[in-house]
Amino acid sequence: MWSVKDVYYISGSTGILAANYGQALICQFPGITFNEKTFPFINSVAQAKETMQKILEYAGGRRPLVFTSLVDPQIRDIFDSTEVEFIDIFEHRLTYLENILECKALRIAGSSRQTDAVVLKERVEAIHFCLEHDDGLKTHQYNQADVIILGVSRSGKTPVSVYLATQTGLKAANFPLTSEYLQTYILPNNILGNRMKMIGLTTSPQFLSNIREKRYPGSKYSSLATCREEIKQAEQIYQRYKIPWLLSTGQSIEEVATQIIQKLNLATIKRFA
Amino acid sequence: MWSVKDVYYISGSTGILAANYGQALICQFPGITFNEKTFPFINSVAQAKETMQKILEYAGGRRPLVFTSLVDPQIRDIFDSTEVEFIDIFEHRLTYLENILECKALRIAGSSRQTDAVVLKERVEAIHFCLEHDDGLKTHQYNQADVIILGVSRSGKTPVSVYLATQTGLKAANFPLTSEYLQTYILPNNILGNRMKMIGLTTSPQFLSNIREKRYPGSKYSSLATCREEIKQAEQIYQRYKIPWLLSTGQSIEEVATQIIQKLNLATIKRFA
Repeated sequence: MWSVKDVYYISGSTGILAANYGQALICQFPGITFNEKTFPFINSVAQAKETMQKILEYAGGRRPLVFTSLVDPQIRDIFDSTEVEFIDIFEHRLTYLENILECKALRIAGSSRQTDAVVLKERVEAIHFCLEHDDGLKTHQYNQADVIILGVSRSGKTPVSVYLATQTGLKAANFPLTSEYLQTYILPNNILGNRMKMIGLTTSPQFLSNIREKRYPGSKYSSLATCREEIKQAEQIYQRYKIPWLLSTGQSIEEVATQIIQKLNLATIKRFA
Repeated sequence: MWSVKDVYYISGSTGILAANYGQALICQFPGITFNEKTFPFINSVAQAKETMQKILEYAGGRRPLVFTSLVDPQIRDIFDSTEVEFIDIFEHRLTYLENILECKALRIAGSSRQTDAVVLKERVEAIHFCLEHDDGLKTHQYNQADVIILGVSRSGKTPVSVYLATQTGLKAANFPLTSEYLQTYILPNNILGNRMKMIGLTTSPQFLSNIREKRYPGSKYSSLATCREEIKQAEQIYQRYKIPWLLSTGQSIEEVATQIIQKLNLATIKRFA
Protein backbone atom coordinates (compact mmCIF):
# COMPACT_ATOMS: atom_id res chain seq x y z
CA MET A 1 0.00 0.00 0.00
CA TRP A 2 1.12 3.54 -0.78
CA SER A 3 1.02 6.00 2.09
CA VAL A 4 1.24 9.17 -0.05
CA LYS A 5 0.25 9.85 -3.65
CA ASP A 6 0.39 13.02 -5.73
CA VAL A 7 -2.81 13.75 -7.60
CA TYR A 8 -3.31 16.28 -10.41
CA TYR A 9 -6.51 17.54 -11.95
CA ILE A 10 -6.09 18.96 -15.46
CA SER A 11 -8.82 20.83 -17.27
CA GLY A 12 -9.46 23.15 -20.20
CA SER A 13 -11.85 25.01 -17.93
CA THR A 14 -11.97 25.38 -14.13
CA GLY A 15 -11.02 21.81 -13.22
CA ILE A 16 -13.79 21.67 -10.64
CA LEU A 17 -15.46 18.62 -12.17
CA ALA A 18 -12.16 16.74 -12.60
CA ALA A 19 -11.28 17.48 -8.96
CA ASN A 20 -14.72 16.48 -7.65
CA TYR A 21 -14.58 13.31 -9.72
CA GLY A 22 -11.09 12.41 -8.53
CA GLN A 23 -11.97 13.20 -4.93
CA ALA A 24 -15.06 10.98 -5.04
CA LEU A 25 -12.71 8.11 -5.94
CA ILE A 26 -9.72 8.80 -3.73
CA CYS A 27 -11.91 9.37 -0.66
CA GLN A 28 -12.68 5.65 -0.89
CA PHE A 29 -9.05 5.13 0.26
CA PRO A 30 -8.94 6.91 3.63
CA GLY A 31 -5.65 5.29 4.64
CA ILE A 32 -3.68 7.12 1.98
CA THR A 33 -2.64 10.78 2.01
CA PHE A 34 -3.22 12.48 -1.32
CA ASN A 35 -1.44 15.71 -2.31
CA GLU A 36 -3.78 17.36 -4.76
CA LYS A 37 -3.25 20.16 -7.26
CA THR A 38 -5.47 21.53 -10.01
CA PHE A 39 -4.16 22.96 -13.29
CA PRO A 40 -7.11 24.84 -14.78
CA PHE A 41 -7.49 26.55 -18.17
CA ILE A 42 -5.07 24.29 -20.07
CA ASN A 43 -6.14 25.16 -23.60
CA SER A 44 -3.12 24.68 -25.84
CA VAL A 45 -0.63 21.96 -26.63
CA ALA A 46 2.16 24.26 -25.41
CA GLN A 47 0.48 24.80 -22.02
CA ALA A 48 -0.17 21.08 -21.74
CA LYS A 49 3.48 20.22 -22.42
CA GLU A 50 4.68 22.77 -19.89
CA THR A 51 2.26 21.40 -17.27
CA MET A 52 3.24 17.81 -17.93
CA GLN A 53 6.91 18.75 -17.56
CA LYS A 54 6.22 20.35 -14.16
CA ILE A 55 4.36 17.24 -13.01
CA LEU A 56 7.13 14.92 -14.08
CA GLU A 57 9.88 17.06 -12.56
CA TYR A 58 8.07 17.10 -9.25
CA ALA A 59 7.28 13.38 -9.41
CA GLY A 60 10.94 12.35 -9.21
CA GLY A 61 10.25 8.87 -10.57
CA ARG A 62 7.08 8.25 -8.53
CA ARG A 63 3.97 7.84 -10.63
CA PRO A 64 1.37 10.48 -9.81
CA LEU A 65 -2.34 10.15 -10.56
CA VAL A 66 -3.42 12.50 -13.33
CA PHE A 67 -7.16 13.07 -13.80
CA THR A 68 -8.13 15.02 -16.90
CA SER A 69 -11.43 16.38 -18.19
CA LEU A 70 -9.90 17.58 -21.46
CA VAL A 71 -12.19 17.25 -24.47
CA ASP A 72 -9.61 18.23 -27.11
CA PRO A 73 -7.87 14.95 -28.04
CA GLN A 74 -4.58 16.65 -29.00
CA ILE A 75 -4.22 18.32 -25.60
CA ARG A 76 -5.50 15.26 -23.71
CA ASP A 77 -2.96 12.92 -25.35
CA ILE A 78 -0.04 14.85 -23.90
CA PHE A 79 -0.97 13.58 -20.44
CA ASP A 80 -1.62 10.02 -21.59
CA SER A 81 1.88 8.87 -20.72
CA THR A 82 3.27 5.74 -19.07
CA GLU A 83 5.09 7.99 -16.60
CA VAL A 84 1.82 8.81 -14.85
CA GLU A 85 -1.35 6.94 -13.89
CA PHE A 86 -3.54 8.61 -16.47
CA ILE A 87 -7.29 8.83 -15.94
CA ASP A 88 -9.39 10.60 -18.57
CA ILE A 89 -12.62 11.08 -16.63
CA PHE A 90 -14.65 11.08 -19.85
CA GLU A 91 -12.59 8.49 -21.74
CA HIS A 92 -14.60 7.10 -24.65
CA ARG A 93 -17.88 8.61 -23.37
CA LEU A 94 -18.12 11.46 -25.85
CA THR A 95 -17.70 9.06 -28.74
CA TYR A 96 -20.24 6.72 -27.15
CA LEU A 97 -22.74 9.59 -26.83
CA GLU A 98 -22.05 10.69 -30.40
CA ASN A 99 -23.15 7.25 -31.53
CA ILE A 100 -26.22 7.10 -29.30
CA LEU A 101 -27.33 10.64 -30.07
CA GLU A 102 -26.38 10.42 -33.76
CA CYS A 103 -24.77 13.84 -33.53
CA LYS A 104 -21.20 15.23 -33.39
CA ALA A 105 -19.98 16.62 -30.06
CA LEU A 106 -18.58 20.17 -29.99
CA ARG A 107 -15.45 19.13 -28.07
CA ILE A 108 -14.98 22.65 -26.75
CA ALA A 109 -13.75 23.10 -23.18
CA GLY A 110 -16.06 24.79 -20.72
CA SER A 111 -19.02 24.77 -23.04
CA SER A 112 -21.26 23.69 -20.21
CA ARG A 113 -24.26 25.86 -19.73
CA GLN A 114 -22.74 27.56 -16.72
CA THR A 115 -21.91 30.66 -18.77
CA ASP A 116 -25.34 30.86 -20.33
CA ALA A 117 -26.37 34.48 -19.72
CA VAL A 118 -29.87 33.63 -18.46
CA VAL A 119 -28.61 31.01 -16.02
CA LEU A 120 -25.86 33.34 -14.80
CA LYS A 121 -28.36 36.15 -14.28
CA GLU A 122 -30.82 33.95 -12.37
CA ARG A 123 -28.05 32.67 -10.22
CA VAL A 124 -26.62 36.10 -9.40
CA GLU A 125 -30.13 37.28 -8.54
CA ALA A 126 -30.66 34.25 -6.31
CA ILE A 127 -27.43 35.01 -4.42
CA HIS A 128 -28.39 38.65 -3.88
CA PHE A 129 -31.89 37.56 -2.83
CA CYS A 130 -30.41 35.10 -0.36
CA LEU A 131 -28.18 37.72 1.29
CA GLU A 132 -31.00 40.24 1.43
CA HIS A 133 -33.32 37.67 3.05
CA ASP A 134 -30.91 36.06 5.48
CA ASP A 135 -31.93 35.63 9.11
CA GLY A 136 -35.48 36.95 8.88
CA LEU A 137 -34.77 40.07 6.82
CA LYS A 138 -37.47 41.48 4.51
CA THR A 139 -40.17 38.91 5.27
CA HIS A 140 -42.63 41.09 3.31
CA GLN A 141 -40.90 39.85 0.13
CA TYR A 142 -41.36 36.14 0.88
CA ASN A 143 -43.73 35.90 -2.09
CA GLN A 144 -40.63 36.06 -4.29
CA ALA A 145 -38.85 33.24 -2.47
CA ASP A 146 -38.62 29.69 -3.81
CA VAL A 147 -37.92 28.25 -0.39
CA ILE A 148 -37.92 29.55 3.20
CA ILE A 149 -35.73 27.70 5.69
CA LEU A 150 -36.70 27.80 9.37
CA GLY A 151 -34.61 26.85 12.35
CA VAL A 152 -33.17 27.91 15.69
CA SER A 153 -29.95 29.91 15.89
CA ARG A 154 -26.97 28.02 14.41
CA SER A 155 -29.01 25.13 13.05
CA GLY A 156 -27.43 25.63 9.62
CA LYS A 157 -30.03 27.82 7.89
CA THR A 158 -27.58 30.30 6.36
CA PRO A 159 -25.05 27.85 4.86
CA VAL A 160 -27.84 25.79 3.30
CA SER A 161 -29.61 28.90 1.93
CA VAL A 162 -26.38 30.23 0.44
CA TYR A 163 -25.59 26.85 -1.09
CA LEU A 164 -29.05 26.58 -2.67
CA ALA A 165 -28.76 30.06 -4.17
CA THR A 166 -25.22 29.62 -5.43
CA GLN A 167 -25.47 26.10 -6.81
CA THR A 168 -29.09 25.67 -7.84
CA GLY A 169 -30.29 29.24 -8.48
CA LEU A 170 -33.12 28.88 -5.97
CA LYS A 171 -34.18 32.04 -4.16
CA ALA A 172 -33.70 30.87 -0.60
CA ALA A 173 -34.74 32.96 2.40
CA ASN A 174 -34.26 31.88 5.99
CA PHE A 175 -36.16 32.74 9.13
CA PRO A 176 -34.79 32.35 12.67
CA LEU A 177 -36.95 30.73 15.34
CA THR A 178 -36.09 33.11 18.16
CA SER A 179 -37.50 32.94 21.68
CA GLU A 180 -40.59 35.02 20.90
CA TYR A 181 -41.77 32.31 18.49
CA LEU A 182 -40.39 29.33 20.37
CA GLN A 183 -42.06 30.21 23.62
CA THR A 184 -45.46 30.94 22.14
CA TYR A 185 -45.31 28.23 19.44
CA ILE A 186 -46.68 30.87 17.09
CA LEU A 187 -45.20 32.05 13.79
CA PRO A 188 -45.88 35.63 12.70
CA ASN A 189 -48.94 36.04 10.54
CA ASN A 190 -47.19 37.86 7.73
CA ILE A 191 -45.05 34.85 6.81
CA LEU A 192 -47.78 32.21 7.00
CA GLY A 193 -49.09 32.96 3.52
CA ASN A 194 -45.92 31.29 2.27
CA ARG A 195 -46.15 28.25 4.52
CA MET A 196 -46.04 25.87 1.55
CA LYS A 197 -42.51 27.03 0.73
CA MET A 198 -41.23 26.40 4.24
CA ILE A 199 -38.91 23.71 5.48
CA GLY A 200 -37.64 23.33 9.02
CA LEU A 201 -34.15 22.33 10.09
CA THR A 202 -33.46 20.51 13.28
CA THR A 203 -30.33 19.03 14.79
CA SER A 204 -29.24 17.07 17.84
CA PRO A 205 -28.99 19.11 21.07
CA GLN A 206 -25.37 17.98 21.57
CA PHE A 207 -24.35 19.04 18.08
CA LEU A 208 -26.05 22.43 18.44
CA SER A 209 -24.52 23.00 21.85
CA ASN A 210 -21.02 22.27 20.50
CA ILE A 211 -21.46 24.80 17.71
CA ARG A 212 -22.85 27.48 20.02
CA GLU A 213 -20.10 26.85 22.57
CA LYS A 214 -17.50 27.92 20.04
CA ARG A 215 -19.14 31.32 19.73
CA TYR A 216 -20.30 31.90 23.30
CA PRO A 217 -18.49 29.48 25.60
CA GLY A 218 -20.15 28.76 28.93
CA SER A 219 -23.29 30.74 28.11
CA LYS A 220 -26.90 29.82 28.80
CA TYR A 221 -27.45 30.16 25.04
CA SER A 222 -25.07 27.31 24.31
CA SER A 223 -25.98 25.05 27.25
CA LEU A 224 -27.26 21.61 26.46
CA ALA A 225 -30.49 22.31 28.36
CA THR A 226 -31.27 25.42 26.28
CA CYS A 227 -30.45 23.63 23.03
CA ARG A 228 -32.62 20.68 23.97
CA GLU A 229 -35.53 22.93 24.88
CA GLU A 230 -35.25 25.09 21.74
CA ILE A 231 -35.09 22.10 19.43
CA LYS A 232 -38.14 20.54 21.07
CA GLN A 233 -40.04 23.78 20.68
CA ALA A 234 -38.97 24.19 17.06
CA GLU A 235 -40.11 20.67 16.19
CA GLN A 236 -43.47 21.36 17.81
CA ILE A 237 -43.84 24.48 15.68
CA TYR A 238 -43.12 22.42 12.56
CA GLN A 239 -45.76 19.90 13.58
CA ARG A 240 -48.32 22.52 14.48
CA TYR A 241 -48.00 24.28 11.11
CA LYS A 242 -47.45 21.05 9.14
CA ILE A 243 -44.04 22.28 7.95
CA PRO A 244 -41.84 19.43 6.70
CA TRP A 245 -38.52 19.24 8.49
CA LEU A 246 -35.26 17.37 8.46
CA LEU A 247 -32.35 16.56 10.71
CA SER A 248 -29.08 18.17 9.63
CA THR A 249 -26.78 16.51 12.19
CA GLY A 250 -23.80 14.80 10.60
CA GLN A 251 -24.83 15.80 7.11
CA SER A 252 -22.98 17.94 4.62
CA ILE A 253 -24.45 21.16 3.28
CA GLU A 254 -25.04 19.39 -0.05
CA GLU A 255 -26.92 16.54 1.57
CA VAL A 256 -29.28 18.85 3.45
CA ALA A 257 -29.81 21.00 0.33
CA THR A 258 -30.58 17.93 -1.78
CA GLN A 259 -33.14 16.70 0.74
CA ILE A 260 -34.84 20.10 0.77
CA ILE A 261 -35.12 20.00 -3.03
CA GLN A 262 -36.56 16.48 -2.76
CA LYS A 263 -39.01 17.18 0.05
CA LEU A 264 -40.41 20.35 -1.48
CA ASN A 265 -40.11 18.96 -5.00
CA LEU A 266 -38.35 22.12 -6.17
CA ALA A 267 -37.51 22.74 -9.79
CA THR A 268 -33.94 24.00 -9.90
CA ILE A 269 -32.25 25.66 -12.79
CA LYS A 270 -29.36 23.67 -14.17
CA ARG A 271 -26.62 22.70 -11.82
CA PHE A 272 -23.21 24.05 -12.59
CA ALA A 273 -20.12 22.05 -13.43
CA MET B 1 -30.15 12.88 -34.64
CA TRP B 2 -32.41 12.80 -31.57
CA SER B 3 -34.16 16.06 -30.73
CA VAL B 4 -35.09 15.13 -27.15
CA LYS B 5 -33.52 12.69 -24.69
CA ASP B 6 -34.42 11.85 -21.11
CA VAL B 7 -31.44 11.82 -18.78
CA TYR B 8 -31.29 10.43 -15.24
CA TYR B 9 -28.63 10.83 -12.59
CA ILE B 10 -28.64 8.10 -9.94
CA SER B 11 -26.56 8.28 -6.80
CA GLY B 12 -26.20 6.78 -3.35
CA SER B 13 -25.54 10.30 -2.11
CA THR B 14 -26.62 13.71 -3.45
CA GLY B 15 -26.19 12.97 -7.16
CA ILE B 16 -24.46 16.30 -7.66
CA LEU B 17 -21.31 14.76 -9.13
CA ALA B 18 -23.25 12.42 -11.43
CA ALA B 19 -25.33 15.38 -12.66
CA ASN B 20 -22.30 17.64 -13.15
CA TYR B 21 -20.51 14.84 -14.98
CA GLY B 22 -23.47 14.10 -17.23
CA GLN B 23 -24.03 17.79 -17.91
CA ALA B 24 -20.41 18.30 -18.89
CA LEU B 25 -20.97 15.66 -21.58
CA ILE B 26 -24.45 16.50 -22.81
CA CYS B 27 -23.65 20.21 -23.08
CA GLN B 28 -21.35 19.19 -25.93
CA PHE B 29 -24.56 18.48 -27.90
CA PRO B 30 -26.32 21.86 -27.91
CA GLY B 31 -28.78 20.84 -30.64
CA ILE B 32 -30.53 18.30 -28.45
CA THR B 33 -32.98 19.02 -25.61
CA PHE B 34 -32.28 16.96 -22.53
CA ASN B 35 -34.90 16.35 -19.82
CA GLU B 36 -32.90 15.76 -16.69
CA LYS B 37 -33.85 14.28 -13.34
CA THR B 38 -31.75 13.28 -10.34
CA PHE B 39 -32.58 10.37 -8.04
CA PRO B 40 -30.40 10.92 -4.95
CA PHE B 41 -29.86 8.71 -1.90
CA ILE B 42 -30.49 5.38 -3.64
CA ASN B 43 -28.98 3.09 -1.05
CA SER B 44 -30.76 -0.23 -1.27
CA VAL B 45 -31.56 -2.79 -3.92
CA ALA B 46 -35.27 -2.22 -3.27
CA GLN B 47 -34.97 1.54 -3.85
CA ALA B 48 -32.92 0.90 -6.97
CA LYS B 49 -35.53 -1.48 -8.41
CA GLU B 50 -38.33 0.96 -7.69
CA THR B 51 -36.39 3.81 -9.34
CA MET B 52 -35.55 1.72 -12.38
CA GLN B 53 -39.20 0.78 -12.76
CA LYS B 54 -40.22 4.46 -12.72
CA ILE B 55 -37.61 5.27 -15.36
CA LEU B 56 -38.76 2.46 -17.64
CA GLU B 57 -42.44 3.27 -17.24
CA TYR B 58 -41.80 6.86 -18.16
CA ALA B 59 -39.52 5.91 -21.05
CA GLY B 60 -42.30 4.19 -22.99
CA GLY B 61 -39.87 2.28 -25.18
CA ARG B 62 -37.43 5.16 -25.76
CA ARG B 63 -34.01 4.56 -24.32
CA PRO B 64 -33.07 7.17 -21.73
CA LEU B 65 -29.52 7.99 -20.66
CA VAL B 66 -28.80 6.80 -17.12
CA PHE B 67 -25.69 8.15 -15.41
CA THR B 68 -24.82 6.52 -12.09
CA SER B 69 -22.19 7.24 -9.46
CA LEU B 70 -23.11 4.15 -7.41
CA VAL B 71 -20.18 2.45 -5.71
CA ASP B 72 -22.08 -0.57 -4.41
CA PRO B 73 -21.95 -3.12 -7.27
CA GLN B 74 -25.26 -4.80 -6.31
CA ILE B 75 -27.18 -1.54 -6.50
CA ARG B 76 -25.32 -0.34 -9.58
CA ASP B 77 -26.08 -3.51 -11.54
CA ILE B 78 -29.82 -2.92 -11.35
CA PHE B 79 -29.43 0.03 -13.71
CA ASP B 80 -27.05 -1.77 -16.06
CA SER B 81 -29.84 -2.87 -18.38
CA THR B 82 -30.17 -3.00 -22.15
CA GLU B 83 -33.36 -0.98 -21.85
CA VAL B 84 -31.37 2.15 -21.03
CA GLU B 85 -28.12 3.73 -22.19
CA PHE B 86 -26.22 2.96 -19.01
CA ILE B 87 -23.21 5.08 -18.04
CA ASP B 88 -21.43 4.27 -14.79
CA ILE B 89 -19.36 7.43 -14.35
CA PHE B 90 -16.71 5.54 -12.37
CA GLU B 91 -16.90 2.26 -14.31
CA HIS B 92 -13.79 0.19 -13.62
CA ARG B 93 -11.93 3.12 -12.02
CA LEU B 94 -12.23 1.99 -8.40
CA THR B 95 -10.78 -1.41 -9.27
CA TYR B 96 -8.05 0.31 -11.27
CA LEU B 97 -7.18 2.52 -8.30
CA GLU B 98 -7.26 -0.47 -5.94
CA ASN B 99 -4.55 -2.03 -8.08
CA ILE B 100 -2.45 1.11 -8.35
CA LEU B 101 -2.77 2.02 -4.68
CA GLU B 102 -2.48 -1.60 -3.48
CA CYS B 103 -5.38 -1.03 -1.11
CA LYS B 104 -9.08 -1.98 -0.97
CA ALA B 105 -11.64 0.76 -1.59
CA LEU B 106 -14.37 1.35 0.99
CA ARG B 107 -17.17 1.34 -1.60
CA ILE B 108 -19.41 3.38 0.68
CA ALA B 109 -21.65 6.04 -0.89
CA GLY B 110 -21.02 9.64 0.07
CA SER B 111 -17.83 8.87 1.92
CA SER B 112 -16.21 11.90 0.36
CA ARG B 113 -14.63 14.21 2.82
CA GLN B 114 -17.41 16.74 2.55
CA THR B 115 -18.93 15.57 5.84
CA ASP B 116 -15.64 15.73 7.67
CA ALA B 117 -16.43 17.81 10.76
CA VAL B 118 -13.41 20.09 10.43
CA VAL B 119 -14.06 20.82 6.77
CA LEU B 120 -17.76 21.42 7.46
CA LYS B 121 -16.91 23.78 10.30
CA GLU B 122 -14.39 25.76 8.25
CA ARG B 123 -16.84 26.04 5.45
CA VAL B 124 -19.74 27.19 7.62
CA GLU B 125 -17.44 29.76 9.21
CA ALA B 126 -16.33 30.96 5.78
CA ILE B 127 -19.96 31.44 4.71
CA HIS B 128 -20.80 33.43 7.83
CA PHE B 129 -17.61 35.47 7.39
CA CYS B 130 -18.53 36.20 3.81
CA LEU B 131 -22.01 37.47 4.69
CA GLU B 132 -20.67 39.55 7.56
CA HIS B 133 -18.04 41.12 5.29
CA ASP B 134 -20.11 41.69 2.19
CA ASP B 135 -20.06 45.09 0.50
CA GLY B 136 -17.48 46.78 2.69
CA LEU B 137 -18.82 45.69 6.09
CA LYS B 138 -16.45 45.29 9.05
CA THR B 139 -13.25 46.30 7.26
CA HIS B 140 -11.49 46.31 10.66
CA GLN B 141 -11.59 42.48 10.53
CA TYR B 142 -9.83 42.20 7.15
CA ASN B 143 -6.88 40.58 8.92
CA GLN B 144 -9.01 37.43 9.16
CA ALA B 145 -9.88 37.39 5.46
CA ASP B 146 -8.21 35.07 2.96
CA VAL B 147 -9.15 37.25 0.03
CA ILE B 148 -10.68 40.72 -0.45
CA ILE B 149 -12.49 41.34 -3.72
CA LEU B 150 -12.70 44.92 -4.99
CA GLY B 151 -14.94 46.32 -7.70
CA VAL B 152 -17.55 48.88 -8.65
CA SER B 153 -21.23 48.29 -7.91
CA ARG B 154 -22.61 45.18 -9.70
CA SER B 155 -19.26 44.02 -11.01
CA GLY B 156 -19.87 40.57 -9.50
CA LYS B 157 -18.07 40.86 -6.16
CA THR B 158 -20.81 39.28 -4.03
CA PRO B 159 -21.56 36.17 -6.15
CA VAL B 160 -17.85 35.39 -6.46
CA SER B 161 -17.25 35.92 -2.72
CA VAL B 162 -20.19 33.70 -1.80
CA TYR B 163 -19.04 31.02 -4.22
CA LEU B 164 -15.50 31.05 -2.81
CA ALA B 165 -16.79 30.70 0.75
CA THR B 166 -19.32 28.00 -0.06
CA GLN B 167 -17.26 25.84 -2.39
CA THR B 168 -13.66 26.37 -1.29
CA GLY B 169 -13.96 27.42 2.35
CA LEU B 170 -12.04 30.65 1.71
CA LYS B 171 -12.94 33.61 3.89
CA ALA B 172 -13.84 36.10 1.19
CA ALA B 173 -14.65 39.73 1.94
CA ASN B 174 -15.61 42.26 -0.68
CA PHE B 175 -15.19 46.02 -0.82
CA PRO B 176 -17.18 48.35 -3.10
CA LEU B 177 -15.37 51.04 -5.06
CA THR B 178 -17.88 53.80 -4.51
CA SER B 179 -17.57 57.36 -5.82
CA GLU B 180 -15.55 58.64 -2.85
CA TYR B 181 -12.73 56.23 -3.77
CA LEU B 182 -13.19 56.35 -7.53
CA GLN B 183 -13.01 60.10 -7.75
CA THR B 184 -9.99 60.50 -5.53
CA TYR B 185 -8.21 57.30 -6.70
CA ILE B 186 -7.50 56.66 -3.04
CA LEU B 187 -8.36 53.59 -0.97
CA PRO B 188 -8.99 54.02 2.76
CA ASN B 189 -5.90 53.61 4.92
CA ASN B 190 -7.41 50.99 7.22
CA ILE B 191 -7.74 48.40 4.45
CA LEU B 192 -4.33 48.93 2.86
CA GLY B 193 -2.56 46.74 5.40
CA ASN B 194 -4.25 43.82 3.66
CA ARG B 195 -3.40 44.90 0.13
CA MET B 196 -1.67 41.60 -0.62
CA LYS B 197 -4.99 39.77 -0.26
CA MET B 198 -6.78 42.04 -2.68
CA ILE B 199 -8.00 41.28 -6.16
CA GLY B 200 -9.93 43.66 -8.39
CA LEU B 201 -12.81 42.79 -10.68
CA THR B 202 -13.52 44.66 -13.84
CA THR B 203 -16.03 44.21 -16.62
CA SER B 204 -17.00 45.73 -19.94
CA PRO B 205 -18.97 49.00 -19.67
CA GLN B 206 -21.75 47.57 -21.86
CA PHE B 207 -22.14 44.48 -19.69
CA LEU B 208 -22.17 46.54 -16.50
CA SER B 209 -24.67 48.99 -17.93
CA ASN B 210 -27.03 46.14 -18.90
CA ILE B 211 -26.94 44.71 -15.39
CA ARG B 212 -27.49 48.08 -13.73
CA GLU B 213 -30.31 48.93 -16.16
CA LYS B 214 -32.32 46.00 -14.82
CA ARG B 215 -32.22 47.46 -11.33
CA TYR B 216 -32.43 51.18 -12.09
CA PRO B 217 -33.64 51.63 -15.67
CA GLY B 218 -32.82 54.94 -17.31
CA SER B 219 -30.72 56.17 -14.38
CA LYS B 220 -27.42 58.03 -14.50
CA TYR B 221 -26.02 55.13 -12.40
CA SER B 222 -26.69 52.63 -15.16
CA SER B 223 -25.76 54.82 -18.15
CA LEU B 224 -22.98 53.63 -20.40
CA ALA B 225 -21.03 56.85 -19.74
CA THR B 226 -21.08 56.34 -15.95
CA CYS B 227 -20.14 52.68 -16.28
CA ARG B 228 -17.28 53.50 -18.63
CA GLU B 229 -15.96 56.19 -16.30
CA GLU B 230 -16.24 54.05 -13.14
CA ILE B 231 -14.50 51.10 -14.73
CA LYS B 232 -11.66 53.31 -15.95
CA GLN B 233 -11.26 54.78 -12.49
CA ALA B 234 -11.37 51.35 -10.84
CA GLU B 235 -8.65 50.01 -13.15
CA GLN B 236 -6.50 53.02 -12.36
CA ILE B 237 -6.90 52.32 -8.65
CA TYR B 238 -5.80 48.71 -9.22
CA GLN B 239 -2.75 49.93 -11.12
CA ARG B 240 -1.88 52.58 -8.57
CA TYR B 241 -1.95 50.11 -5.67
CA LYS B 242 -0.52 47.21 -7.71
CA ILE B 243 -3.64 45.13 -7.07
CA PRO B 244 -4.02 42.26 -9.55
CA TRP B 245 -7.30 42.33 -11.42
CA LEU B 246 -9.32 40.35 -13.90
CA LEU B 247 -12.12 40.80 -16.38
CA SER B 248 -15.32 38.99 -15.43
CA THR B 249 -17.32 39.70 -18.60
CA GLY B 250 -18.72 36.55 -20.19
CA GLN B 251 -17.29 34.31 -17.50
CA SER B 252 -19.11 32.06 -15.08
CA ILE B 253 -18.83 32.54 -11.33
CA GLU B 254 -16.67 29.39 -11.21
CA GLU B 255 -14.27 30.69 -13.84
CA VAL B 256 -13.73 34.00 -12.05
CA ALA B 257 -13.32 32.22 -8.70
CA THR B 258 -10.79 29.79 -10.17
CA GLN B 259 -8.75 32.65 -11.63
CA ILE B 260 -8.72 34.43 -8.28
CA ILE B 261 -7.38 31.28 -6.62
CA GLN B 262 -4.73 31.03 -9.33
CA LYS B 263 -3.69 34.69 -9.31
CA LEU B 264 -3.37 34.95 -5.54
CA ASN B 265 -2.08 31.39 -5.24
CA LEU B 266 -4.62 30.63 -2.53
CA ALA B 267 -4.63 27.36 -0.62
CA THR B 268 -8.21 26.14 -0.46
CA ILE B 269 -9.56 23.46 1.80
CA LYS B 270 -10.83 20.44 -0.07
CA ARG B 271 -13.40 21.01 -2.72
CA PHE B 272 -16.73 19.36 -2.19
CA ALA B 273 -18.35 16.73 -4.36
